[in-house]
Amino acid sequence: MGEASVRPRAAVVVTGSELLTGAISDRNGPWVARELGGLGFEVSHVLVVGDRPDDLAAALRFAADAGAALVVTSGGLGPTADDLTAEVVAGFAGVPLELDEPMRAHIAAILAAWAARTGFDGPALEEANRKQAMVPRGAVALAPVGTAPGLVVRTAGPLVVVLPGPPRELQGMWPAALASEPLAELLAGVPRAASRSLRYFGLPESEIAATLRELDVRDVEVTTCLRRSELEVDLRPRPGAEDTAAALASELAQRHARHLVSADGAGTDELVAAGLLAKGATVATGESCTGGMLASRLVDRAGSSAYVAGGVVAYSNEAKTALLDVPAELIAAHGAVSPEVARALADGARKRFGADVGIGITGVAGPDGGTAAKPVGYVCFCVTTGDGLVLARDPQLPGGRADVRERATDVGMHLLLRAVRG
Amino acid sequence: MGEASVRPRAAVVVTGSELLTGAISDRNGPWVARELGGLGFEVSHVLVVGDRPDDLAAALRFAADAGAALVVTSGGLGPTADDLTAEVVAGFAGVPLELDEPMRAHIAAILAAWAARTGFDGPALEEANRKQAMVPRGAVALAPVGTAPGLVVRTAGPLVVVLPGPPRELQGMWPAALASEPLAELLAGVPRAASRSLRYFGLPESEIAATLRELDVRDVEVTTCLRRSELEVDLRPRPGAEDTAAALASELAQRHARHLVSADGAGTDELVAAGLLAKGATVATGESCTGGMLASRLVDRAGSSAYVAGGVVAYSNEAKTALLDVPAELIAAHGAVSPEVARALADGARKRFGADVGIGITGVAGPDGGTAAKPVGYVCFCVTTGDGLVLARDPQLPGGRADVRERATDVGMHLLLRAVRG
Repeated sequence: MGEASVRPRAAVVVTGSELLTGAISDRNGPWVARELGGLGFEVSHVLVVGDRPDDLAAALRFAADAGAALVVTSGGLGPTADDLTAEVVAGFAGVPLELDEPMRAHIAAILAAWAARTGFDGPALEEANRKQAMVPRGAVALAPVGTAPGLVVRTAGPLVVVLPGPPRELQGMWPAALASEPLAELLAGVPRAASRSLRYFGLPESEIAATLRELDVRDVEVTTCLRRSELEVDLRPRPGAEDTAAALASELAQRHARHLVSADGAGTDELVAAGLLAKGATVATGESCTGGMLASRLVDRAGSSAYVAGGVVAYSNEAKTALLDVPAELIAAHGAVSPEVARALADGARKRFGADVGIGITGVAGPDGGTAAKPVGYVCFCVTTGDGLVLARDPQLPGGRADVRERATDVGMHLLLRAVRG
Repeated sequence: MGEASVRPRAAVVVTGSELLTGAISDRNGPWVARELGGLGFEVSHVLVVGDRPDDLAAALRFAADAGAALVVTSGGLGPTADDLTAEVVAGFAGVPLELDEPMRAHIAAILAAWAARTGFDGPALEEANRKQAMVPRGAVALAPVGTAPGLVVRTAGPLVVVLPGPPRELQGMWPAALASEPLAELLAGVPRAASRSLRYFGLPESEIAATLRELDVRDVEVTTCLRRSELEVDLRPRPGAEDTAAALASELAQRHARHLVSADGAGTDELVAAGLLAKGATVATGESCTGGMLASRLVDRAGSSAYVAGGVVAYSNEAKTALLDVPAELIAAHGAVSPEVARALADGARKRFGADVGIGITGVAGPDGGTAAKPVGYVCFCVTTGDGLVLARDPQLPGGRADVRERATDVGMHLLLRAVRG
């Protein structure tokens, strides 16, 4: 959607050769980008680079050239020789690295406690300690959450905030970074973003695109994305265009009301939890193909013990009968993957756990086991409640085994939402 | 580890403003990077950029400047106005976009089938169809897996492969991209990588770093990363240094044998599955704090019905007793989070499901519920088998609720591995 933004730009540079071999996915880029967006920055790029000094330096220059006022880096502060971020950032700022003696002592104390607990000790640790206490001259050092300190480094170009790679350490250090004098000073000049977010289930992106073309939206940046089978529509107004964004949000909510999950950014999981709590109800699961994913989604939230009674993963027919009282004759008559068995799983889970709401899921996740009548991706869902509500679906879900199981979990959560909303 | 690589470089450019708001994590960058590494490229960067033409163009120039022979892009091929990849790549190549009429007809047929199924139809779809069939002059168009075709575009600089954003479509189109004439020609000149990978559990990165310093490794690029609580050590030899890498792998396996999971890259989940299959054994889970995550991990693999009997998520004390026969007096005497209850959960799961191996997990995931004696992160594990094996652990796991649950699932899988390895 048109208009250039007047918000200051920021970039994220994530280091780690292991992220370029595909061994693991970067979790820090999205996390930092979201924080920066919330603070009012326009995030121009997330760059993932290997542990090669030239490539990291090039990434910093690229971010500066793209007009970033702030660059946040993650990773490369570890004890191994290929962890070079502090050195490269010092070079970018044109200052030398110096041993920060109080920081060295601070890290030494952390390492000593760890060595005592694990039995690892000796020269490897000492080397790590010294390396991790090297700080670019004039930089603000942030106290370690693990063993690596963070850095806030002023340069001729963007302010550079250097954070460790482990997500727990990075996130734990973030408040201290925000409170550091150079970053606090920068933030004082950034107008806060007032973004809005709508969520839909079962609505194709092309429908939103058509509505936006028709309304000829200006001064609001609109992005859409599919997230756990929901279409999320984010509206970010330019400073001063907050009313335009609010009007657009109402319009989008009205036009596609049938598919709307929420107009305030609340996701299905949050709404299911709120709905169960409001009713004082508990839920129990009887899962086959999703194998515990739905139970795990329900338990993800803190405080879930108030509304999750429990669940059974009944992968075999014997388990369905023994643990959830699904009659063996029902399975014989309709097959383990059938609307009838889904309903029996829901009822069985609800009764065995003494819950108010039960959900049953049984399907063909693949890659094997599909038939012409019940191909891979055919999944049966049923939600039943103690007061007689029955909601059933048996869609054909696209994709391979992992896709089918993920989408089935999404559909299960949405069916629960319909049940608990009333 | 030192030495510049002689492998040709490749870069990945992932587009999508939603990836910069932190709404979702990029799955394509790591996937494509892994494929490219396997083909013998050195992946220099993964760049995530928003749906802004200037930023995407700058990213392509940056990749070219970094010496990339190949750039793979993902996303930005959708029906909305902010999906601009084809246009920007055409500009980068210096050629116009042209309507590919056979492709338009092909997409129209896909959309018609979809419209018939969902009830969505009309001008929004027609517009999408035309837009998605625009192809840079001279480019190879790849048949859609969803509705968006891919592109292979020759430029004065790197070869650019343009793929759709949905991971299922991107991965589905990958074989066709590899088989396309321009990419096949490029690949013919790339020496294949012979990378090796070792995995450890419970070994700190600093120990590997110390060993590598001592051995003074050359011509092998070594990267380490933590992945599902395992330390993965990847060795990538320069062409010709394959023997050096093999010797290094043996040395690393020997020196840290006590913590070695595998010396051939096999992960715990794979080894647990193989171990159960080799014994002809089945496993059942009794989970509290992990809430189904362990069952779901076990079911992740295709063919898991051969060795997964099922599981119970027994979140409440009543459920532990009713579903898994944990004596109420045992819970009263030792608390729901105790080694005794973990063992009873394992035995209960094993017996109720008629399985050969049972695993019980009960812990304090937080954020509430911790005490001085049993703080947040305290988790009790037990694996029992029909022939009398008992393996128990009760570690204190670091981090918040999500960390504790994830690590507990990792520890559970490792304990299962110990049990099935014998």
